[in-house]
Amino acid sequence: DETNKKPIEPKPDFYKDEPKRNPQLKVLTQKPFNAESPKEISAENLVTPLEFHFIRNHMPVPHIDTKTFKLEILNVSNGEKIEFSLDDLENKFNSVTIPVTLQCSGNKRKFMNELGQVQGLMWDVNAISTALWTGVLLKDLLIHCGIDLNDPKIKHVIFEGLDKDPAGVVYAASVPIEKVRSDNGDVLLAYKMNGQDIPLDNGYPLRIVVPGVIGARSVKWVGKIILSDVESQSFWQLNDYKVLSPSIKNLKEADFSKLKAVQESPIQSAICQPVDGNIIKRENGKFIAKGYAFSGGGNEIESVLVSIDNGQNWKNATLKKFDRPLYRSWAWTLWEAEFDIPEGKDQIEIVCTASDSNQNTQPESAKSIWNARGLLNNSWHRVKVNIQ
Amino acid sequence: DETNKKPIEPKPDFYKDEPKRNPQLKVLTQKPFNAESPKEISAENLVTPLEFHFIRNHMPVPHIDTKTFKLEILNVSNGEKIEFSLDDLENKFNSVTIPVTLQCSGNKRKFMNELGQVQGLMWDVNAISTALWTGVLLKDLLIHCGIDLNDPKIKHVIFEGLDKDPAGVVYAASVPIEKVRSDNGDVLLAYKMNGQDIPLDNGYPLRIVVPGVIGARSVKWVGKIILSDVESQSFWQLNDYKVLSPSIKNLKEADFSKLKAVQESPIQSAICQPVDGNIIKRENGKFIAKGYAFSGGGNEIESVLVSIDNGQNWKNATLKKFDRPLYRSWAWTLWEAEFDIPEGKDQIEIVCTASDSNQNTQPESAKSIWNARGLLNNSWHRVKVNIQ
Ligand SMILES: [Mo]
Ligand SMILES: [Mo]
Repeated sequence: DETNKKPIEPKPDFYKDEPKRNPQLKVLTQKPFNAESPKEISAENLVTPLEFHFIRNHMPVPHIDTKTFKLEILNVSNGEKIEFSLDDLENKFNSVTIPVTLQCSGNKRKFMNELGQVQGLMWDVNAISTALWTGVLLKDLLIHCGIDLNDPKIKHVIFEGLDKDPAGVVYAASVPIEKVRSDNGDVLLAYKMNGQDIPLDNGYPLRIVVPGVIGARSVKWVGKIILSDVESQSFWQLNDYKVLSPSIKNLKEADFSKLKAVQESPIQSAICQPVDGNIIKRENGKFIAKGYAFSGGGNEIESVLVSIDNGQNWKNATLKKFDRPLYRSWAWTLWEAEFDIPEGKDQIEIVCTASDSNQNTQPESAKSIWNARGLLNNSWHRVKVNIQ
Repeated sequence: DETNKKPIEPKPDFYKDEPKRNPQLKVLTQKPFNAESPKEISAENLVTPLEFHFIRNHMPVPHIDTKTFKLEILNVSNGEKIEFSLDDLENKFNSVTIPVTLQCSGNKRKFMNELGQVQGLMWDVNAISTALWTGVLLKDLLIHCGIDLNDPKIKHVIFEGLDKDPAGVVYAASVPIEKVRSDNGDVLLAYKMNGQDIPLDNGYPLRIVVPGVIGARSVKWVGKIILSDVESQSFWQLNDYKVLSPSIKNLKEADFSKLKAVQESPIQSAICQPVDGNIIKRENGKFIAKGYAFSGGGNEIESVLVSIDNGQNWKNATLKKFDRPLYRSWAWTLWEAEFDIPEGKDQIEIVCTASDSNQNTQPESAKSIWNARGLLNNSWHRVKVNIQ
């Protein structure tokens, strides 16, 4: 009933029950808690260890009593309600485990901000992590409930979290029914992350995982799933996670009603090692650059090009990735490339760019993709290192 | 049996039975016949009239006796062969009609060639057209034949044309079984184009139409379909339509065996009106730019940005497109944008760039996507006009 309402900024004591966090995370805000994964962890781990997964919270972490918890599924088409306990979900359905990379749509925003002020958390390149998510395929669960996924009155699947603002507005988002219905969709109602209970910050006990789609739709602490003829009427669905035209310089000029909610994310890559300002010893003769590449929509990374002369010459990086079925490549690819340290230079700029199975590539600059909300900056990442 | 063999250059009299063509097509080569659609036709027609559809032939046009013609389907997994007459295909199965844009993977090659020599036909921006294709969904036909599309021994679907070189090598290509099997694949065995018999140059009587994928896989004059554990061993599948690294400057250095055959094509756009060198009258005060945008893989075009100051300011073009289900947007979008003629300039450069439902965008320059075969140039298109 809370339609398209921006959440109220709560008083700090609203955040009295926050979980303990790994001090190695790179914190952007404490309340709500938002933190990046450390770069060296991303560079080395195809699966991010649980305690290093990035965290993007919109409100305080809810504490859910798993003994009494019931997931509610509401079919607006016929008014039917169905409830499942965690025990039902974990024991009465086939479980699947899928490697999925979640990425905040604001990842790399700080570099877009350098071209003109944008609004949002100033994420560096690590608002992205990968986990092995285990759960029930939402499609299977809905079919088990007798829900007709081709019912023309069902156009969107809404996910409501149990996290809420002081006025009781819960975090919510939706995806089109086509994503849930597709044989290549893999939308998961997850109860395990890397084989363990999902950490409190990542949605314990139940999280929707929407592979290939911006993190904002993978609703944590999910308590209710609604099969609806309209998309979620939440602020985040209607007035937030949408890509404005570069001609809109200020969010106040924006008419969000004219734009579609972002779902699948574009091809992306970043350098995680070395990091900006690192010192590389000339006596080593060589150095290795490492990072990740990822494409939404199930696309596989086919190549990562790395250059130390601003793209005059490109080197094909060595790739490390999961072996996945076509159209269902949901996790990032790690890459590395070795370079000879060039003579006569005391600084090198490293730049990388990826291509995917749809042959898409990244824009060189954020100039033409700049948007006032600072979303989906997938322009080439650059890192400067000093040679000594 | 003819494995990965480059077709022989035939003597000119090998082409004695070529059909009559529309003299308004922009011809690149006569033998084989390769020609673009006129720019003014692309600018104005969401469905390209049959006689204006671009033509990309690899060999002479075969003349097929439709009375005796049989399509052969061979399942390598169990050796089973099934044959269908045209009459069977047209009358015994449900027909579907789908708007599909076919694009040669060499479209816009001439602009990539400006950055460094590439090999292939020097297509301008109109090796792309759209038709309403009618036929049988290949998936339905194969299921009707009792073929198990989840048989692990079936990994690729090979299409053999009836066009051949002097040594008898036929044009052939394949797509992964996942594309054919998918609910969102829409691979069509087509027998009508814009409601009429398919023109001789576009595959009469039967053409495979693989939506969202480069034109090279939509095999014309298809005579044989093979369900196989390996992809087509044709020259065009193995050693031709693959994107080489920009570091490979010469095709002779290329190891094609290391690369995947291109299937889905990336986001693309072009300006069709005005054309390079056109004169615009200052007294009109305004002018209109028009063109197309297209993204492979079923992605929908969400925006087209147009600029007359090299991207300092972007205008959102008005879009005209088919209303299509999510993930199955197979046709281009036409766009137009009106500009005031700026004071004090006697030349204007127009530039356009598009974005799609996967939030992918086009590279500004072809520098980082340059490849020796000149494939998939989707960099920003620029047109210079003179003001008088
Ligand atoms: Mo996000
Ligand atoms: Mo082509």
